[in-house]
Amino acid sequence: MKTRAAVAFEAGKPLEICDVDLEGPRAGEVLVEIKATGVCHTDAFTLSGDDPEGAFPAILGHEGAGVVVDVGPGVSSLKPGDHVIPLYTPECRECDFCLHPKTNLCQSIRETQGRGVMPDGSSRFSLDGKPILHYMGCSTFANHTVMPEIALARVREDAPFDKICYIGCGVTTGIGAVAFTMKVEPGSTVAVWGLGGIGLNVIQGAKMVGASRIIGVDINPDKVALAKKFGMTDFVNPKEVDDVVGHLVEITGGGLDYTFECIGNVNTMRQALEACHKGWGESCIIGVAGAGQEISTRPFQLVTGRSWKGTAFGGARGRTDVPKIVDWYMDGRINIDDLITHTMPLDDINKAFDLMHAGESIRSVVLY
Amino acid sequence: MKTRAAVAFEAGKPLEICDVDLEGPRAGEVLVEIKATGVCHTDAFTLSGDDPEGAFPAILGHEGAGVVVDVGPGVSSLKPGDHVIPLYTPECRECDFCLHPKTNLCQSIRETQGRGVMPDGSSRFSLDGKPILHYMGCSTFANHTVMPEIALARVREDAPFDKICYIGCGVTTGIGAVAFTMKVEPGSTVAVWGLGGIGLNVIQGAKMVGASRIIGVDINPDKVALAKKFGMTDFVNPKEVDDVVGHLVEITGGGLDYTFECIGNVNTMRQALEACHKGWGESCIIGVAGAGQEISTRPFQLVTGRSWKGTAFGGARGRTDVPKIVDWYMDGRINIDDLITHTMPLDDINKAFDLMHAGESIRSVVLY
Repeated sequence: MKTRAAVAFEAGKPLEICDVDLEGPRAGEVLVEIKATGVCHTDAFTLSGDDPEGAFPAILGHEGAGVVVDVGPGVSSLKPGDHVIPLYTPECRECDFCLHPKTNLCQSIRETQGRGVMPDGSSRFSLDGKPILHYMGCSTFANHTVMPEIALARVREDAPFDKICYIGCGVTTGIGAVAFTMKVEPGSTVAVWGLGGIGLNVIQGAKMVGASRIIGVDINPDKVALAKKFGMTDFVNPKEVDDVVGHLVEITGGGLDYTFECIGNVNTMRQALEACHKGWGESCIIGVAGAGQEISTRPFQLVTGRSWKGTAFGGARGRTDVPKIVDWYMDGRINIDDLITHTMPLDDINKAFDLMHAGESIRSVVLY
Repeated sequence: MKTRAAVAFEAGKPLEICDVDLEGPRAGEVLVEIKATGVCHTDAFTLSGDDPEGAFPAILGHEGAGVVVDVGPGVSSLKPGDHVIPLYTPECRECDFCLHPKTNLCQSIRETQGRGVMPDGSSRFSLDGKPILHYMGCSTFANHTVMPEIALARVREDAPFDKICYIGCGVTTGIGAVAFTMKVEPGSTVAVWGLGGIGLNVIQGAKMVGASRIIGVDINPDKVALAKKFGMTDFVNPKEVDDVVGHLVEITGGGLDYTFECIGNVNTMRQALEACHKGWGESCIIGVAGAGQEISTRPFQLVTGRSWKGTAFGGARGRTDVPKIVDWYMDGRINIDDLITHTMPLDDINKAFDLMHAGESIRSVVLY
């Protein structure tokens, strides 16, 4: 079949809208009509050429929602008409990782996914007979895509695609880091570095689980109003205090129970660890640092009881946990609407990247 | 009263055996006759002058066992004749730390203990009318010492002082790191950097809780025989492999569930983290690094599911957990006898430091 897609032909160039060829689903695969997709920093990172694993031509996009159109042989958990969210972290429920209680990093199709192909080693997309690569196992910048069954979370049918697509990455990453990775307890104190989309989702996750104090740390005071709406109780601007760590330790009477770094800066990662409370404070790295950069601290910080952790996709096991997060949204426990600041048709997708780079959007969503 | 003690008059000099004056216990304090004391690297570190918090003259020693001789007003949990192990990490059961489920680092008397005095700010030891400082709240290099009630673990009376004194530091630090801090599960894979006293106690702790594979990492193959006796299943000599981390990941099929650094070297701390299994491996720093040294890694190590932690006194809450470890020894679940390689009278205590520096002892114990 033909489907309309935004194709990344080479690094550093705008996406081009084309009608590409899409093969039907093979064994264990599912054809999905994408209804909406968010445009994420990770897409921009790969498009920029800075991603050492980036390969072209490819159809980017990994934060979508849609409807099953057709299923290949052997697919048993999904049928045409099911509403789904694509998962760049699949959940096979059979590999050593899926069977381990402490991780969500299913490895069953990682190698082929990293190469931009389906588990059988081939691509379903092509143009003029030449293959186009998949991206993060999703390629939601195409109106139709083919995905492995294990990489699709079935979700309730009354949930709006144009909002729940964001659960495919940003919402789950932030809220999941709080709820699944760090298991923040009611009454905890929390600090969050970076009040972008991920930081706001960490804040609303912390609020949802009952944190008593949620401190936002950002150099841009324009972000305060929305962060407060999401649950931030205190704001610290590093430009206005001499010593961020010392200030946080002072105003919390000893440091934070949990901290989250949502910027990708190794210096703020260190701050986030060292602002943790002696004895029990735990810090979680969410942001992605530049290639080759390293975090450092004195080991004394750990010996005196702080822990340093990280998270990917919020520790969520996608097929199991993503439907729960959709429920949280539909029950009004979390706010997605205020985070989606812009929508546009596929033809205007490059504007989403422009808005992101200009810092004008929290999340832009493409509506098919 | 008078008591015989080994006094550290100044940094870098041998201890001197003297009869010192000891005041009786004040409110909340207990007079203890020390029956045996281990000589630990931490004593040597302070005696060397490298410890920035070291102060002199002082009576060192923090790894003892003895009998209560007298109690001050208000002491309710101990009486003369009780057998006790001094605790350099007390357990008041009232401070924010004692009441927090995730830490053992009772802070109730930390400030005065750090200054070498009792909680009321004064010392009980003196010589010729001049005060001598306490050390780590214990001063077990004196035949009698005065300690806060909250810093004494009451233990069963059939346990031999010359063995259980080692539970006052080294045994608990190693076994506790496994059992209390990291909560290693049966069937786990474990690696231990450094096969000294702490490393051997980590090994026997891992064996006790049912680890399936226990890999020792040390540059000295002479340590293999004893480590195997304690439960080591595999030995890796970093001098014989090109890449310690790569080798460990290879022989374990992906990395370790738990790693423990017992050397105090920031490079092996990094190795211990990076040899952890993607998704769930957790590394624990036990060794004490040199002043100002820092640990580093790529944040990717944490984002892909490894955790970096540390421990002090094995995460043990002394009054609660030390009696349990004494039981484990008396029940034959752990081996202390083979770790105590030398004993000597107080007059020969400087030989214990010589043996330690020459690498000839695992633990020397002074018998009063």
